[in-house]
Amino acid sequence: MIIQLDPNIAAADKEAIVGNVKSLGYKATEVKTQEKLYIIGIGKKDFDIRLLGQMKGIEDIHRVSDDYKLVSRKWKVERTHIDLGDQVIIGNGSLSLMAGPCSIEDEGQVQQTIDHLVKHGIRIMRGGVFKPRSSPYAFRGLGIDGLKMWYTLARKAGIKIITEVMQVSQIAEMYDYVDVFQVGARNTQNFNLLDELGKVDKAIMIKRGISGTIEELLYSAEYVFAAGNEKLMLCERGIRTYEKASRNTMDLNAIPILKEKTHLPVIADPSHGIGIREYVDPIALAAVIAGADGVIYETHQKPEEAASDGQQTLDFEESARLIDKLKKVYALRESF
Amino acid sequence: MIIQLDPNIAAADKEAIVGNVKSLGYKATEVKTQEKLYIIGIGKKDFDIRLLGQMKGIEDIHRVSDDYKLVSRKWKVERTHIDLGDQVIIGNGSLSLMAGPCSIEDEGQVQQTIDHLVKHGIRIMRGGVFKPRSSPYAFRGLGIDGLKMWYTLARKAGIKIITEVMQVSQIAEMYDYVDVFQVGARNTQNFNLLDELGKVDKAIMIKRGISGTIEELLYSAEYVFAAGNEKLMLCERGIRTYEKASRNTMDLNAIPILKEKTHLPVIADPSHGIGIREYVDPIALAAVIAGADGVIYETHQKPEEAASDGQQTLDFEESARLIDKLKKVYALRESF
Amino acid sequence: MIIQLDPNIAAADKEAIVGNVKSLGYKATEVKTQEKLYIIGIGKKDFDIRLLGQMKGIEDIHRVSDDYKLVSRKWKVERTHIDLGDQVIIGNGSLSLMAGPCSIEDEGQVQQTIDHLVKHGIRIMRGGVFKPRSSPYAFRGLGIDGLKMWYTLARKAGIKIITEVMQVSQIAEMYDYVDVFQVGARNTQNFNLLDELGKVDKAIMIKRGISGTIEELLYSAEYVFAAGNEKLMLCERGIRTYEKASRNTMDLNAIPILKEKTHLPVIADPSHGIGIREYVDPIALAAVIAGADGVIYETHQKPEEAASDGQQTLDFEESARLIDKLKKVYALRESF
Amino acid sequence: MIIQLDPNIAAADKEAIVGNVKSLGYKATEVKTQEKLYIIGIGKKDFDIRLLGQMKGIEDIHRVSDDYKLVSRKWKVERTHIDLGDQVIIGNGSLSLMAGPCSIEDEGQVQQTIDHLVKHGIRIMRGGVFKPRSSPYAFRGLGIDGLKMWYTLARKAGIKIITEVMQVSQIAEMYDYVDVFQVGARNTQNFNLLDELGKVDKAIMIKRGISGTIEELLYSAEYVFAAGNEKLMLCERGIRTYEKASRNTMDLNAIPILKEKTHLPVIADPSHGIGIREYVDPIALAAVIAGADGVIYETHQKPEEAASDGQQTLDFEESARLIDKLKKVYALRESF
Repeated sequence: MIIQLDPNIAAADKEAIVGNVKSLGYKATEVKTQEKLYIIGIGKKDFDIRLLGQMKGIEDIHRVSDDYKLVSRKWKVERTHIDLGDQVIIGNGSLSLMAGPCSIEDEGQVQQTIDHLVKHGIRIMRGGVFKPRSSPYAFRGLGIDGLKMWYTLARKAGIKIITEVMQVSQIAEMYDYVDVFQVGARNTQNFNLLDELGKVDKAIMIKRGISGTIEELLYSAEYVFAAGNEKLMLCERGIRTYEKASRNTMDLNAIPILKEKTHLPVIADPSHGIGIREYVDPIALAAVIAGADGVIYETHQKPEEAASDGQQTLDFEESARLIDKLKKVYALRESF
Repeated sequence: MIIQLDPNIAAADKEAIVGNVKSLGYKATEVKTQEKLYIIGIGKKDFDIRLLGQMKGIEDIHRVSDDYKLVSRKWKVERTHIDLGDQVIIGNGSLSLMAGPCSIEDEGQVQQTIDHLVKHGIRIMRGGVFKPRSSPYAFRGLGIDGLKMWYTLARKAGIKIITEVMQVSQIAEMYDYVDVFQVGARNTQNFNLLDELGKVDKAIMIKRGISGTIEELLYSAEYVFAAGNEKLMLCERGIRTYEKASRNTMDLNAIPILKEKTHLPVIADPSHGIGIREYVDPIALAAVIAGADGVIYETHQKPEEAASDGQQTLDFEESARLIDKLKKVYALRESF
Repeated sequence: MIIQLDPNIAAADKEAIVGNVKSLGYKATEVKTQEKLYIIGIGKKDFDIRLLGQMKGIEDIHRVSDDYKLVSRKWKVERTHIDLGDQVIIGNGSLSLMAGPCSIEDEGQVQQTIDHLVKHGIRIMRGGVFKPRSSPYAFRGLGIDGLKMWYTLARKAGIKIITEVMQVSQIAEMYDYVDVFQVGARNTQNFNLLDELGKVDKAIMIKRGISGTIEELLYSAEYVFAAGNEKLMLCERGIRTYEKASRNTMDLNAIPILKEKTHLPVIADPSHGIGIREYVDPIALAAVIAGADGVIYETHQKPEEAASDGQQTLDFEESARLIDKLKKVYALRESF
Repeated sequence: MIIQLDPNIAAADKEAIVGNVKSLGYKATEVKTQEKLYIIGIGKKDFDIRLLGQMKGIEDIHRVSDDYKLVSRKWKVERTHIDLGDQVIIGNGSLSLMAGPCSIEDEGQVQQTIDHLVKHGIRIMRGGVFKPRSSPYAFRGLGIDGLKMWYTLARKAGIKIITEVMQVSQIAEMYDYVDVFQVGARNTQNFNLLDELGKVDKAIMIKRGISGTIEELLYSAEYVFAAGNEKLMLCERGIRTYEKASRNTMDLNAIPILKEKTHLPVIADPSHGIGIREYVDPIALAAVIAGADGVIYETHQKPEEAASDGQQTLDFEESARLIDKLKKVYALRESF
C-alpha cells in the first residue's frame, strides 16, 4: 500500500498514520523524494481501507499488489518524465536519443562527437570515464579528469552528459559534471550504490543486469525511489543466453512488459543488445516501434580505432542514417 | 564448395567432376533439387580453383567458408522466393502474413477465420491438426480429417494452408491438403523428418528449436535443401531463457543475423515469441522493422475459448488493427 | 487419479468404472502395460473416493496431484527395476554401468570394446548406429548392418545392447537386436516416437532434452508408460547454458530431484554432461554419490581416432580406473 | 608473463627489468602481495626468454598463455593454502567445512550454532550481517553490531568467521571481526570492491556470479591478487538457467575445471546450488567427490523460523549427519 501524504502534514498526524498502518499488521516505511512524501505499507492481510482513508494529512491511498510499489504503474498511471533542464526532457512523448563513444578518450574525440550530435539535434552524450573491465590489466578509463574535460566541452555546446558511476565514493566527485548517473549491468544489484543514488537529486538510469530478470530490475529501481529519488529510468541492454551468434540477446519483450508494469521511462541499448555494428540499426528501430522512450547507442569517429567496443560502434555516417530512420519510425508509432 | 552443374550434363562428365573433387581430398555429395543440380564438396584443403573451373558441364563454382553451404548467402546472394501459386509468393519483396488459430477446432471456427483473413487480404492461414503436447492426456488435434475439412473451406476462398507435420508417416497423407509443411520447434533437429521433407516438392517452414542456436537452424535447413527441396523458409519463434515474465524470449537479433547469413526468407512468430496477447502487437511490428519477410501469428474468434494457446491469441479486432499497422511499418521499412 | 484394475476384470465391470469416473467430471484413459491394467482419470474436482473404492474389479486407487501420473512416485513408492535377462537388472539396488563408443565403427572395435567390458564385469554396451548429426554431410553411422554385426558379437559374450532409435520406422528393424532403445536428447519430445515405443515390450531409456526441463522429461516418460510400456528409465546428460568452458552443464541437481519425483531408474551420462575427457571421472563419481542408479559413458580403444566424440571418450585404461572408483563410491553410498 | 622478483631487489635492478619488459612491447604491472613481488607482463609478441632470464633480481619467469595470470595454475602448480590461524587451514589437503545460518539473528542463535559446530569439529562459521536483498523492504541484517556480538562468542569458542562484505566502506569497520571476507554472487564483478580487498591482509572468498562464467570468476580473482592479496579462494554456488525445479543449477562441472585452471582452493555451496533442504546433502557429497576443497552450507536450530533462506537450511541433526558423510566421502576421495 502507498499512502501519499500532504507535504505539510503535522508530525503528530504522520505519527498517527504510521501507528495505524502498523496496527493493521503492516510494516511502514517513510519515503521522502524530491517530489512527495509517502508511507509504504508492506503486509499481507486485507483490511478496510476506510480505517485509513479519513485520517488527516492523507492525500491518496493505493493498494499495489506487486511486491515493488513505488515504481509500479498500478498506483501511478501517468508516465514519469525527467527534466534535465534546457528543454531536454526524457519520457514526455518525444524520442530521447543518447549517443557517444564507449570510452571518453581525448579532447579531439569528444569535440568531434559533440559536433556530430549538435548537427543532428541529439542533446545527450554517452561515454565512459570509469570503465568496468573483466581483466584488471585492461584500460579502465580516464577517470574524473576525463569527465571534467568532457563536461567543459559539452556545456559549451548545450549537451547533457550520461555516464556510469561504479561506486559510492565516486558519486560526490562526479556530481557536478553529470546529468544522468548510469548504473551499469554489473551493478544492477549493487544495493549500496542504489541506496546512495536515491539520496541525490540527479537523474539515474539503471541498466538491466547481465542476467537480471525484469522483476529484479524493477526492484532495483524501487531501491532508488524508496531512498528518495524519483528521477529514474530503466534500460534494456540484452541478456546472457546460450546463443553465441550475438554478444547478448536483446530482450525486446522487456520493452512492452516494462512499459506496462512501470511508469518509468524505458531506454533501449541496441549496441550492447546485439553487439555487432552491422545489426545495431535494425535492433534500434525495433526497440522504438515496440515502445521504447529512447535509444542509447555507441558512435565514434573511427570505430576501428576506439579504445573499447569498436566492433559494436557506428561511425558518424551510420549514426546519421540511424537518427533519420529512428525519427521516422517514432513518428509512425506516434501516429498509431 | 558448391559446384552448379549444367542440368543436361552427361553422366561421364559428372563422374569426371566428382572424381576430380575427391582427388582434391574433398567429400562430394550430389544434390538434385527442383531447380538445379549441384555437387557439394566438403573438405579443408586449399586448391587451385582452375583445376575444376574448366571442366565440361560446370556452370559455376563457389567457395563457401560456412559449414552449411546451400543455404548460405555466400554463394547465393539473390534472395529466395517461394511461389505457392495464385500470386501468393513469400520473400519477393512484399510482406507475407499468416494467421489463424493454434488448433483447428471445427467448421464454424475455420469459416469465421477464413472470412476474417479474406476481409483483410491475408492469403495464408495457419492452424494445427497434429498438435505436439507435453502431456499425453492433452488435446492432440483433429488429425487428418480436420485437415481435409479445413482444406475444402480454404480452397474455396483462395486461402493457402500452413500446418505442422510431426512425423515422416504423416507427409504422404497430408501432402494433397497442405501448401506449406511446418516443422515445429520440437522437431527442428528431427533429421529423418528433414530428410524426407527434402524429397517433396512443397514449401517447408522450419521453426527454430526451443533452445536451438541460429547455426543449428541453418544446418537443419541445409538438411532439407541437400535432400532436394529449395522451397524453404525459416521462423524465429523465441528461445528458452531464465526470464519468466514472458513465455519465451523473442530473439529479435536472429532476424538481421539470419537475413545476412542465408538467402532464405525469414518469418517471425510473435505469438510464441512473447506468449502474452497484449504484447504480440509490438513484437510483430519490431520483427518487421528489423527485416522479417513475414509474420505468423495466432488469431481466434474467441481467444478465451480456444482449444489451446488462448492467452497468446488475438481476437479478430486486434488482428485487424495489427494487420493495418504491419502494412504501415513494412511500407516505412521499404522506403529506407 | 490412477485406478489399478484386476487384470481379469469383466468387461462390464470396467465399463461401469469408466462411466463412474466420467460422471465425476474426469477424463478417463485406459492404460494397459506389460504388467498391469489402469484407468487414468484427469480432472480437477474433488470427490469422495468411496464413490469408486467399492466397485468390483478395482485393486487400488491413488490420487496423484502431479500432472504426470504413472511415472510419479506419489502412487508407486517402490522403485521400478528393469530386467534385461541373464541377471542384468537395472534399478534393483546395484549400480548399472553402460559403456562403449559413441559410434559403432567396425568389428575390431566392437570386439575390443566387448573384451574390455567383459574383463571389468560390465554387462551393457552402448554405441550408436543411427547418429543424429547437426550437419547433413557428417558421418551418420553404420545403420542396421552395423547393429546386426554388433549384436552377433555381443550375444556371444553375454553383453546387452543399448542404442539410439531415431524414428518410428526403425523400431521394427532394430527390435530383435536391441536390449534398450535409447531416445536421444533431440527426440525427447518426439511424441510420435514415444507413443510407438510405448507399444513395444523392450526397455527404453529417455535422455533429457538439450534444454528440456525435468518436468518435460517426466511428461515424455508418461507418454511411453501411458502407451503401455513400464520398462522405462531416465537419463541426465547435461543441459545447454551460457557457460562455454564445458560442452554442456551437467545438472547434478536433477538426480536427487528425479529420484524424489519418480519411481523410474535414473542414469547419468557424464561424457555428454561435461564433454571433456579429463573431467568425465569426477562427474561420474558425483552422479553416483548423488544417487544415480547407473552411469553411461563413452570409451574407445583409441579415443583420438574415434569416428565421433573422441574428445569426451575415455581410453580403456581410464575406463578401468573409473569402474573401480565407481564401485567404491557406490559401496560407500549404500553404507549410508 | 609473470616475473617473480627477489624480495630484496634493488630499485635500480627492478627499474631495469621493467624497462626491458616494456622494450619487448609488453605492458608491465608491478604486483606486491603479502608473499611476493612480481612483474606481470601483458602482451602478444613472442620473445627470447633469455633476454630477461639473466637479469639481476629475477627469481623465476613463467610464460602464461591464459589472459588471467596470477591465479593460473600454468605458473603455480602447487596449490595455495590459506592459514586462518589456530590450525585452521584451507586447501592443504583436508576438507574445510563452513556452516551456519543465512542471517545472524541474535545471541541465542549464534551460541547454539557455535555449540553445534564445536561438537562436530567444524572450525569456520558462516552468517550474514549485511544482507543483499532484492527488495528494499526486506530484512537487511543486523549490521556491524551483530558482527561484533558474533565475534565475541566465536572467539571464545575458537571459531573463525566468514561473512559477506557488500561495499568498500564496510571493509574497515568489519576488518577486526572477520577471518574471511566473502564477496557475494551479486558483487563478483564489483571491481572497486575487489581492488580494495586486494589491499587487505585477510582471506577472501569470491562467489561465482549469478550468471557468471568460470572465466569471469578467475578474472575477478585476478583483480584481488593483482592488487596484492594472495589469500584467495573461489566458490561455486549454482548458476541461473531456465530450469525452475531448483533455485539455481549447481554447476558441478565447474569444480574439476577450476581445480585444473587455478591453484586457488575451490569451495562448494550446495545450499544455494540447489536451494532445497532435502537435496543439499547429495549435492554436497557430489561436490566433495568431484574435488572441492571445502563445503559451505546453511544450518539453523529451527530452519522453519530462520530470518531468511529457511527452505534451504538444514537443522542441526541433518547437519550432523551430513558432516559425518562428508568426512567419509572425502576419505574415499583421498584414497584414490
